[in-house]
Amino acid sequence: MIPRYTRPEMAAIWADQNKYRIWYLIEAHATEKLAELGVVPQSAVEAVWKAKDVEFDVDRINEIEAEVKHDVIAFLTHLAEHVGEESRFVHQGLTSSDVLDTCLAVQLKQSADLLLEGMDRVLAALKARAEEHKYTACIGRSHGIHAEPTTMGLKFARFYAEFARNRERLVRARDEIATCAISGAIGTFANVDPAVEEHVAEQMGLTVEPISTQVIPRDRHANYFAVLGLIASAIENIAIEVRHLQRSEVREAQEYFSPGQKGSSAMPHKRNPILTENLTGQARLVRSAVVPAMENVALWHERDISHSSVERGIGPDANVHLDFALHRTAGMIEKLIVHADRCAENLNAYGGIHNSQRVLLALTQAGASREVSYRLVQRNGMKTWDEGGMLVDHLKADAEVTALLSNEQIEACFDEAYHMKHVDTIFRRVFGE
Amino acid sequence: MIPRYTRPEMAAIWADQNKYRIWYLIEAHATEKLAELGVVPQSAVEAVWKAKDVEFDVDRINEIEAEVKHDVIAFLTHLAEHVGEESRFVHQGLTSSDVLDTCLAVQLKQSADLLLEGMDRVLAALKARAEEHKYTACIGRSHGIHAEPTTMGLKFARFYAEFARNRERLVRARDEIATCAISGAIGTFANVDPAVEEHVAEQMGLTVEPISTQVIPRDRHANYFAVLGLIASAIENIAIEVRHLQRSEVREAQEYFSPGQKGSSAMPHKRNPILTENLTGQARLVRSAVVPAMENVALWHERDISHSSVERGIGPDANVHLDFALHRTAGMIEKLIVHADRCAENLNAYGGIHNSQRVLLALTQAGASREVSYRLVQRNGMKTWDEGGMLVDHLKADAEVTALLSNEQIEACFDEAYHMKHVDTIFRRVFGE
Amino acid sequence: MIPRYTRPEMAAIWADQNKYRIWYLIEAHATEKLAELGVVPQSAVEAVWKAKDVEFDVDRINEIEAEVKHDVIAFLTHLAEHVGEESRFVHQGLTSSDVLDTCLAVQLKQSADLLLEGMDRVLAALKARAEEHKYTACIGRSHGIHAEPTTMGLKFARFYAEFARNRERLVRARDEIATCAISGAIGTFANVDPAVEEHVAEQMGLTVEPISTQVIPRDRHANYFAVLGLIASAIENIAIEVRHLQRSEVREAQEYFSPGQKGSSAMPHKRNPILTENLTGQARLVRSAVVPAMENVALWHERDISHSSVERGIGPDANVHLDFALHRTAGMIEKLIVHADRCAENLNAYGGIHNSQRVLLALTQAGASREVSYRLVQRNGMKTWDEGGMLVDHLKADAEVTALLSNEQIEACFDEAYHMKHVDTIFRRVFGE
Amino acid sequence: MIPRYTRPEMAAIWADQNKYRIWYLIEAHATEKLAELGVVPQSAVEAVWKAKDVEFDVDRINEIEAEVKHDVIAFLTHLAEHVGEESRFVHQGLTSSDVLDTCLAVQLKQSADLLLEGMDRVLAALKARAEEHKYTACIGRSHGIHAEPTTMGLKFARFYAEFARNRERLVRARDEIATCAISGAIGTFANVDPAVEEHVAEQMGLTVEPISTQVIPRDRHANYFAVLGLIASAIENIAIEVRHLQRSEVREAQEYFSPGQKGSSAMPHKRNPILTENLTGQARLVRSAVVPAMENVALWHERDISHSSVERGIGPDANVHLDFALHRTAGMIEKLIVHADRCAENLNAYGGIHNSQRVLLALTQAGASREVSYRLVQRNGMKTWDEGGMLVDHLKADAEVTALLSNEQIEACFDEAYHMKHVDTIFRRVFGE
Repeated sequence: MIPRYTRPEMAAIWADQNKYRIWYLIEAHATEKLAELGVVPQSAVEAVWKAKDVEFDVDRINEIEAEVKHDVIAFLTHLAEHVGEESRFVHQGLTSSDVLDTCLAVQLKQSADLLLEGMDRVLAALKARAEEHKYTACIGRSHGIHAEPTTMGLKFARFYAEFARNRERLVRARDEIATCAISGAIGTFANVDPAVEEHVAEQMGLTVEPISTQVIPRDRHANYFAVLGLIASAIENIAIEVRHLQRSEVREAQEYFSPGQKGSSAMPHKRNPILTENLTGQARLVRSAVVPAMENVALWHERDISHSSVERGIGPDANVHLDFALHRTAGMIEKLIVHADRCAENLNAYGGIHNSQRVLLALTQAGASREVSYRLVQRNGMKTWDEGGMLVDHLKADAEVTALLSNEQIEACFDEAYHMKHVDTIFRRVFGE
Repeated sequence: MIPRYTRPEMAAIWADQNKYRIWYLIEAHATEKLAELGVVPQSAVEAVWKAKDVEFDVDRINEIEAEVKHDVIAFLTHLAEHVGEESRFVHQGLTSSDVLDTCLAVQLKQSADLLLEGMDRVLAALKARAEEHKYTACIGRSHGIHAEPTTMGLKFARFYAEFARNRERLVRARDEIATCAISGAIGTFANVDPAVEEHVAEQMGLTVEPISTQVIPRDRHANYFAVLGLIASAIENIAIEVRHLQRSEVREAQEYFSPGQKGSSAMPHKRNPILTENLTGQARLVRSAVVPAMENVALWHERDISHSSVERGIGPDANVHLDFALHRTAGMIEKLIVHADRCAENLNAYGGIHNSQRVLLALTQAGASREVSYRLVQRNGMKTWDEGGMLVDHLKADAEVTALLSNEQIEACFDEAYHMKHVDTIFRRVFGE
Repeated sequence: MIPRYTRPEMAAIWADQNKYRIWYLIEAHATEKLAELGVVPQSAVEAVWKAKDVEFDVDRINEIEAEVKHDVIAFLTHLAEHVGEESRFVHQGLTSSDVLDTCLAVQLKQSADLLLEGMDRVLAALKARAEEHKYTACIGRSHGIHAEPTTMGLKFARFYAEFARNRERLVRARDEIATCAISGAIGTFANVDPAVEEHVAEQMGLTVEPISTQVIPRDRHANYFAVLGLIASAIENIAIEVRHLQRSEVREAQEYFSPGQKGSSAMPHKRNPILTENLTGQARLVRSAVVPAMENVALWHERDISHSSVERGIGPDANVHLDFALHRTAGMIEKLIVHADRCAENLNAYGGIHNSQRVLLALTQAGASREVSYRLVQRNGMKTWDEGGMLVDHLKADAEVTALLSNEQIEACFDEAYHMKHVDTIFRRVFGE
Repeated sequence: MIPRYTRPEMAAIWADQNKYRIWYLIEAHATEKLAELGVVPQSAVEAVWKAKDVEFDVDRINEIEAEVKHDVIAFLTHLAEHVGEESRFVHQGLTSSDVLDTCLAVQLKQSADLLLEGMDRVLAALKARAEEHKYTACIGRSHGIHAEPTTMGLKFARFYAEFARNRERLVRARDEIATCAISGAIGTFANVDPAVEEHVAEQMGLTVEPISTQVIPRDRHANYFAVLGLIASAIENIAIEVRHLQRSEVREAQEYFSPGQKGSSAMPHKRNPILTENLTGQARLVRSAVVPAMENVALWHERDISHSSVERGIGPDANVHLDFALHRTAGMIEKLIVHADRCAENLNAYGGIHNSQRVLLALTQAGASREVSYRLVQRNGMKTWDEGGMLVDHLKADAEVTALLSNEQIEACFDEAYHMKHVDTIFRRVFGE
């Protein structure tokens, strides 16, 4: 975790304090059911719940772990310091993995819920800005080259649609990861009744893992991190767009620049898209978790522990970075300055050649062959490009064109409302009625 | 595509022949709606459907493309050679991307359907072998070390469960990728009515892309390839297990070895797990498509074409490799030789120390503290490990143990049926009733 | 291999014909030494060299392989069809891997040499264009925002320097991969004298692999593909720059557009940077080989064959794509149209605020504190940015500024030659004297 | 950084304290040269060196940064608090990137040097264990299947050779990354003489960056992280081998197990290869830095800052993890328990069929065709495999074999010294004389 890219809410999920709290709840709920099944005495339940409000002492547990070299034993030893001798009934028939893997499921579920909040903030921001700029005309670009008009609202709307898809993916990935395994050594339930698993699952808000082998299968985790990679790529997608829009020659949008903020130490006039550049990098970082998570799937036989060190890294890091990136994205969009005047300037900067397609269609419909129409449009388009002036005027001056189209017909090709006529249709598709 | 790793069914999907067939259908259906809307004459529809049964001449199209340097124009020019002058009304208001992206969606949908067939074959094989070996006892291993007993059936069952999850993921990814975009330049529908898109989508078995920007958003593709990466990892998971089970010292399972097959040129007696080693490599190849697919998401502005060369590679390759790998996996599982006798030998090879956990529990329940129980089990376990003999006998000879447990109680810890008692529960969870 | 991205020279290296030719040479040279050592009769040498000029029949070998299911045995069987019964002495004491791995080393070496030719073409093009535009002034941009002046020549020069570094890396990677292993089963030389390896290595232009374990260690290959990934990233670096320079608002450079070439089917006037967009994608493809190549390093024990299917994919594909991409890059640079006039326009588009840094220094040197200088520059820079006009004029009108600097001193800050004074120093560093 | 996987030596390199120390030295040395060139007064040099022994107050700098939102300005402001008003001459003509990028180069160089120490420890351990077990015979395995004999020493030797190659790669990567850029805005030296760069480079133990564009080109960094990925893969290679050797059925080697260490909470007898499983995961983590580092290469125009967040992650993390992993690897090898007795048992476990190859050769040399020899060996090999007994005895009982070979000739095929005869040759190649 890099402090400057860490929000306290997500850090808390991955803090030892939270981990031990979850371990405790798993053990306590398991003991409850074990007592009900008669495996351990009822007194053990009362004993274990005595620690209900205890803030576990992370330093003390670490101290014990340094000695016994086993994290769960260290925790149980510390628990005994709180609840006394009855604690020997706790963890009966369980393995460390039952506790560790179920805890990880809880932490990932908590993380997903927090990320969903971040996504909702991004979605809300995108929707608001889309509505605001629904009809703010600007030039659409393919290959970085002016193509045909579109609107700033449509830009926000497409990012909204992508985020909405990713939101659904994350909900599913969360539900897939939120499973509980209390199945004992090798996952056969030989030493712990499946009823314990069912009880703990219910109490912890998880579903039962249908088949575990001491570990929860890692395709669930790989799927989770793959979805984080997709969300990160969606953030990169927005970031790249804003960086382009902010560049000196385009200036159609600009990250909010607070009056007190210094740009670069050397060039005080610069307003750099540093948030979105930063987000571009964050996306690379989050995405780097995908491949190791997939490499974790093929554990040896019923389990090995190679996944563990990977997850100690990517578990907190990918969630923390993405959580931060989502809120940075949301804040950036909320405050993004859109220069509608610059949009209009750019739209008209190249003599209206973005209407070539319409002229092409008009010519075809007037009876010219595709080849002839193409040649006529290309000729006048290049003239506009090379010599300046407006395409509409060059066309009106071209005898071959005027033989096919009247001045009115030519001018009709340059009515900008033409391009906006289905914006509302698209908005309805994306945002509903 | 590597011929030896290519099945003709998948190759056909990615062949030029199929691509041009799809292009044709998209154009023809679009023309149909355009005529209905009065944009083009009805005669154009009749003309275009004249080519309904034409096998397009790939070489001829390539020849034209070499000249015009544009694939869709080359195709349309060739189409004109079949349907005559009316073809000038075809593609009215569309852009190349409308055709290319919708075609790719169809090809990916076709690929997904073929992959699902492969997955179903794998699932059927896993289920059959799971049922067959439901109670074939074998040692479960954590860290590659003997742990507690499990069954061969449970191994197949866990792979089944993983494949079943991946099957659902692929169905969703297929549905997500199967969208149709006929939205014209920059995706504003300025030059083509949304009704055309709706019609083509319906005819091609696709859903409408809510918002496209000349291109279909690439998060859909990234999601698709991420799921392929998950399936590949599941194959690797099976492959690693079989490779382990086949190693000389384990020999609990073995890939089918046809009588006529030569092993290595130098060591005729060897029966190598070459299918599963090959699958391990194929998994790496398929997985390598995930990151570039995610890098494709952030196109510039409304679109750039950087995704195209990536997709020309990973589009066919990842699908072809995975398709091949699925059928190789299925065939391997169907014919896998399971040596139940070797399973039994290995299970008992280490003096029954895998029952240590049970002894530990018995001692705890007999009133010993966790620490004492642990020490007693560890002492006798290490003796068995170091000196051989059976753990049960060492325990019976340990006065500290016999002070706590009777001989009957000790022997009860070594009853293997104990470990099988919940196999049926797990099977019901995985396979249903 | 994707035909449109495949040059015949590289395809030939990875063709079966070349592979069998190399196998033959390895076997023939090995037989030579084996005869000299008295292991096989001299007649075997004469027999094997009879096939010296044979074009091996790939179809026939594949036919045999389909039957014996072993590629090297199939080849040897076919060889016997050419050289007769004496062929039984060929391959004495060797394993398939000796032949396969040494062959792969030769193919990778041949590939590297071909790639080096491509790199040399790129380097020559970059150098020529750098010299040509050594003093073509343009605005330098950080964060996509105008910063201070630089030259187009410096752009080319920095790509040259990166390519030169990558060239060195590839030479080293080639030398590292070019090793010969003829060490027999498990690599102990039990069945084949090290002298055979030494002889074959010498004849094939390779060095001896110090320690092989039937296979050549895969870190050599991983290193090779990592370097291809670096070169691909360098190509992406150039491609991104050109795409930026070509965008409608910048237009400082443009890919060559042949008069006959059609742009998009819909917008005839567009000149899209399609080569560099394509190269951006190709870079992603080549880079995707890096991770699987690294995953190949940890083979099981003395060898497993999981690397093989990976290498059947990335071996040809990464080399073929990079080879193509290098020549496309070179051709693109050679013919790139640089619009010096647009460079000049852009350079002066924002009222000379790129000279803010110099004004800042001048103010500091005139005795103002950093904070005061900063404030004065920022004030006038923002005025220029917001209201237009030239910074030099705004400064001359600012009483706080003129209290510190004379008009001459202010004007001196806007002399563009100032930024060029060390271009020659940099060129000397990059290109030598 | 994950505390449990972090050694203090590497943590110190990436601590803010060290970063600010390096920034200070860069600024101080730059000021020195600037004074010599007459750009700033000599008094500035004296002032700046007043802070020579200052431990900078990280909290105070962070406090200032929170206000000015610029890290280098915050540092310079704090520096002024130590050295007074003369500090306004510090950083004259420099940009933040000059300081940041040169600092990163120093940190990576320091990291590389520390990693080299770790590698040297690994190399020393591997060499010692190789010498110790030079002739400890064990079975070599291909595909996990017994092949022919090798020695434990050769296993260590091949890892040594791989590490030695990686050591060279890291030395080169270190030298490539250790460059100094003090070239001012956009890297043109317009505001700072190249002599400053030369002076700082020399003082900081770096070489001059031939051409920078405000940033040091990121191929240097990508190359560095790619080499870390190779070293990580080499560690994985060792880890996988040890994990295989330690598995219950093999037990030829075992990680050191301290008497006081508890294995699993549930199975006290288990001795799990947890260090090497952990290393397997760490390798995945380190390797995950490679792709983002390559994605960092293509910055926009003269620079953008997207690389920065990536490097804040992978800079410390990949170095810290690898540093830890190297020492864990070294310690593991140093103390690895090799069970020579188990090696011998496994070697002879399958009736000597690993000598099949020699029998094959003997038969061929006795005049049998390849096919006949193969059939005879395969027949007896399979008999041994299926029915047990020793291959040598089965051969002696096979009339077709004894028609070709005498009993002495057959027995000679089973002399184990045969396999060791070139071990010394290989050792000389790997370790020198």
